[in-house]
Amino acid sequence: MEISHCGKQSIRFKHMPCVLSYASVVGKKESQGPLAPSFDMASQDTRFGQKSWEKAETQMQKTAIQLALEKVDLKENDLDAAFLGDLLNQCVGSSFSMRNLDIPTFGLYGACSTMAESLILASMAISGGFCKKTLSLSSSHFASSERQYRFPLGYGGQRTPTAQWTVTGSGALILGSEGEGPFIESVTIGTIIDHGIKDANNMGAAMAPAAYHTIKAHFEDLSLAPNDYDLIVTGDLGSLGSQIVRELFLMDGIDLGYHYDDCGVMIFDTQTQDVHCGGSGCGCSASVLCGHLLNQMRLGGIKKMLFCGTGALLSPLSVQQGESIPAVCHAVAFSSERSN
Amino acid sequence: MEISHCGKQSIRFKHMPCVLSYASVVGKKESQGPLAPSFDMASQDTRFGQKSWEKAETQMQKTAIQLALEKVDLKENDLDAAFLGDLLNQCVGSSFSMRNLDIPTFGLYGACSTMAESLILASMAISGGFCKKTLSLSSSHFASSERQYRFPLGYGGQRTPTAQWTVTGSGALILGSEGEGPFIESVTIGTIIDHGIKDANNMGAAMAPAAYHTIKAHFEDLSLAPNDYDLIVTGDLGSLGSQIVRELFLMDGIDLGYHYDDCGVMIFDTQTQDVHCGGSGCGCSASVLCGHLLNQMRLGGIKKMLFCGTGALLSPLSVQQGESIPAVCHAVAFSSERSN
Repeated sequence: MEISHCGKQSIRFKHMPCVLSYASVVGKKESQGPLAPSFDMASQDTRFGQKSWEKAETQMQKTAIQLALEKVDLKENDLDAAFLGDLLNQCVGSSFSMRNLDIPTFGLYGACSTMAESLILASMAISGGFCKKTLSLSSSHFASSERQYRFPLGYGGQRTPTAQWTVTGSGALILGSEGEGPFIESVTIGTIIDHGIKDANNMGAAMAPAAYHTIKAHFEDLSLAPNDYDLIVTGDLGSLGSQIVRELFLMDGIDLGYHYDDCGVMIFDTQTQDVHCGGSGCGCSASVLCGHLLNQMRLGGIKKMLFCGTGALLSPLSVQQGESIPAVCHAVAFSSERSN
Repeated sequence: MEISHCGKQSIRFKHMPCVLSYASVVGKKESQGPLAPSFDMASQDTRFGQKSWEKAETQMQKTAIQLALEKVDLKENDLDAAFLGDLLNQCVGSSFSMRNLDIPTFGLYGACSTMAESLILASMAISGGFCKKTLSLSSSHFASSERQYRFPLGYGGQRTPTAQWTVTGSGALILGSEGEGPFIESVTIGTIIDHGIKDANNMGAAMAPAAYHTIKAHFEDLSLAPNDYDLIVTGDLGSLGSQIVRELFLMDGIDLGYHYDDCGVMIFDTQTQDVHCGGSGCGCSASVLCGHLLNQMRLGGIKKMLFCGTGALLSPLSVQQGESIPAVCHAVAFSSERSN
């Protein structure tokens, strides 16, 4: 048996999994932002025709799955496995999406790193020959997150300057073993990093050290450098967190420069949309990946991309108990061409 | 690339992952039950020396990891990946266990099916050559679950006859590619089944159809029958749910007979320990597997075992919104000998 583990945290795939299809669904505010044209569907109804925000999240997921399947003329039962999760307690958005769909399902909890986590697991399943086609899926909803993590919306709580705005969105991605690409070349599995940040309204700062740690491990494990990528993109560090990542690398003498961006910064216009430090939530990196980023790869604007999902692994209770915020970052390297 | 997917939901491993080590840690009530001698450690302090029940859960997990590592003289950094989860909102028990441990970590949410889910994912990682050694881990705590899912303990709510008692326990299992065994021969990934049960105090009935569905798929996908196993064991259906599984198979003309048991029935004396239908929680199947069941396999009492983790994918909010309870069951087939 060949071992494809590299260094401490990374895997280079001998058989590179292939992106067969992807789709994104977002809410009203996201459809008013700079990436609006890249989403497959945007709803002006925050409940997506459902009775609750939680059911709206399930509805977004279902729509994203259907759109991704339809683009390549597949049916649900063509999928050998689904890897998915969301931010709701007990991940109910995802469980209800997959209910009675007859798709073998792995539930995940990686907070806002879920899309990247699901792509790593799906890539192992495909590359190892365990599955032929897989679904990776994640979502978040501004209103369901606010009431679960912070305050009832009606309370009208003031948001701090470092706060981010949870994206209402979902992204679905179908991987297979053969196809036109883009392809997944390598991945770096995150470890859980906690540098003692306790402010639940500053998740960018809590997650930045995890992003730095994983990206650095990726370079070291696979003997790569920032110049090997056209784009290194973190999930949802926002403007403050992504600035911290830049500074951490500068302390190592590495300038990420134009190679680096953040989905939380890209999805909203931070000057005009009143989102403070930018977007967040599982749906942020999922919808930006399954829209703008993979579109750019297919159009040839990006040939090599390191997609780094970032998650803050707090709960309202852990914050109440005075705990700091552990964070994780999982990285997935996309290439427009198959290198093996 | 060889495809090892069988039928709709199953995988037969060409290279069978091997159990290198396992350990279990439980609370006071579990240490008074029939499986008491099989646990590595039992604490008479429900807080395990910590300030809160949630931190106690993290402490149990950490202890289980250390015990499993020590038995085979491994260190944390010998592990290429950890696959783990628990029942706490945002799986904080697990995130805090892995904090700053430098182990690449995948967070899972499969409710009480988590141990089986983590073994399937770890098996793919090992068998595919992506990891050399992995950790599978899960836990639950009676007191943290009661207050999250039901009532504050001090309220003294009356439990219904169909209720189960959340096990305070954790199980840790280290898989590798080579060793003495037992081995993981095949797995069946669960689909999410919802037959409309809405009573959150009758999770055995909610999960039984998922268990039936996965076990049946396992037999069909791999051309097997109950007689191929010395033991088919579900996670935590309890006495009512496991009776429903027996009856569902009887309707197909299959008598599971002495081949079938349930961890939730095994871990407590349902006559004397006032647990109503038996044990439940992620820690139930995890601690019974990483104690009694694998001990029996190593001693030769069981040669072939189908371990079926069962999870009820509800949340308190989904119940309040009038939803029924989706459930999942993941199955892992252990063999005392390597068949390939």
